[in-house]
Amino acid sequence: MSIVTIQRKVLEKNDEIARRNRERFSQKGTFVINLVSSPGSGKTSVLERTLEYFEGKVRLAVIEGDVQTDLDAQRIARYHVPVVQIVTNGGCHLEAKLVEDALTNVDLRGVRLLVIENVGNLVCPSNYDLGEAMKVVVASTTEGDDKPLKYPGMFLHSSALIINKTDLLPYVSCSLEVLKGNALKINPALKVFEMSCTTKVGVPEWCRWLEEHLSG
Amino acid sequence: MSIVTIQRKVLEKNDEIARRNRERFSQKGTFVINLVSSPGSGKTSVLERTLEYFEGKVRLAVIEGDVQTDLDAQRIARYHVPVVQIVTNGGCHLEAKLVEDALTNVDLRGVRLLVIENVGNLVCPSNYDLGEAMKVVVASTTEGDDKPLKYPGMFLHSSALIINKTDLLPYVSCSLEVLKGNALKINPALKVFEMSCTTKVGVPEWCRWLEEHLSG
Repeated sequence: MSIVTIQRKVLEKNDEIARRNRERFSQKGTFVINLVSSPGSGKTSVLERTLEYFEGKVRLAVIEGDVQTDLDAQRIARYHVPVVQIVTNGGCHLEAKLVEDALTNVDLRGVRLLVIENVGNLVCPSNYDLGEAMKVVVASTTEGDDKPLKYPGMFLHSSALIINKTDLLPYVSCSLEVLKGNALKINPALKVFEMSCTTKVGVPEWCRWLEEHLSG
Repeated sequence: MSIVTIQRKVLEKNDEIARRNRERFSQKGTFVINLVSSPGSGKTSVLERTLEYFEGKVRLAVIEGDVQTDLDAQRIARYHVPVVQIVTNGGCHLEAKLVEDALTNVDLRGVRLLVIENVGNLVCPSNYDLGEAMKVVVASTTEGDDKPLKYPGMFLHSSALIINKTDLLPYVSCSLEVLKGNALKINPALKVFEMSCTTKVGVPEWCRWLEEHLSG
């Protein structure tokens, strides 16, 4: 049995569980996003701004994925939403089974939006369906404008791109136009948002777009 | 045969080839560093500043690893050093075999320093020995000061840490002291450098330290 076969079987098994998760989300009327990016792009900050926007309006829940620590879950718990931390213990991405297990600790009744924050990794999580409605990739201006070309898989598998840290544009060597152009070259269907989690510019546009996807 | 066994066999095979690479480097008197970080931390910029420092003093060669594109090799070629690009085609890390294959295109005679720039990924490359003398991890201030705790493997397996983008400290939520403290908590033996590839602050300290490791 070759490694390629093993890998295919792992992905098939993952897809089967992802289908189960997706069915469950659909039954509960929960819209699910899988938030992906490099380490330090600002996934947790985007999530914090999103939680602030929806506070008192929409019921949310969060699943945090990290290689180690529950630092992100601690940050999110301050917003008084249900949050479960998955620690992968060295694992480089979340898998559908980890999410299924985490769901035993989340009451989805009335939850209209579930955000799964993946491990910070611009390569591996792109291959693993968790049962989400869509992947949203965060890329920060400080990472440079060539990342979509160098890590195309993640941009190809995402429905939306949040370009974060636009407040740092004056200080870094990154062209917003080149970054957007490169992302759309990889995936012309990407919905692109420009955002600064520090100044909050762009947060309402992103949240209103997200809101349109939530069911009554 | 379980997946864990497959994974162990992959790593054993990798270690065997890494030993072969290491022997070859030793015979040629070539010191080898494996440069690792998240995407966009500035590995290529650190490499560019390093090439500038050693220009005309020390013979260098470079192996570039990327998921896609030869953009980094193009950047490095401007410095008139031998450079080979490895494209992993979706692979999330370099392996010893890829480096061994790339070496057929590098004449190591007289090369005292070989820099292997790994795929941008703070998780997966930490497990793969390429035959290097040491791993050097780059972490940028824009990624935040909690990264060593959240991605401990890479900091544990590295000999040196370059904290890059210190020029952006006034604009980001990152404490240099906390970042250093977290890194040293994971690996007290880490040699830490503070650097800005934009202002070039810290470049000479890093390069002089590296120079001490090169053989006659």
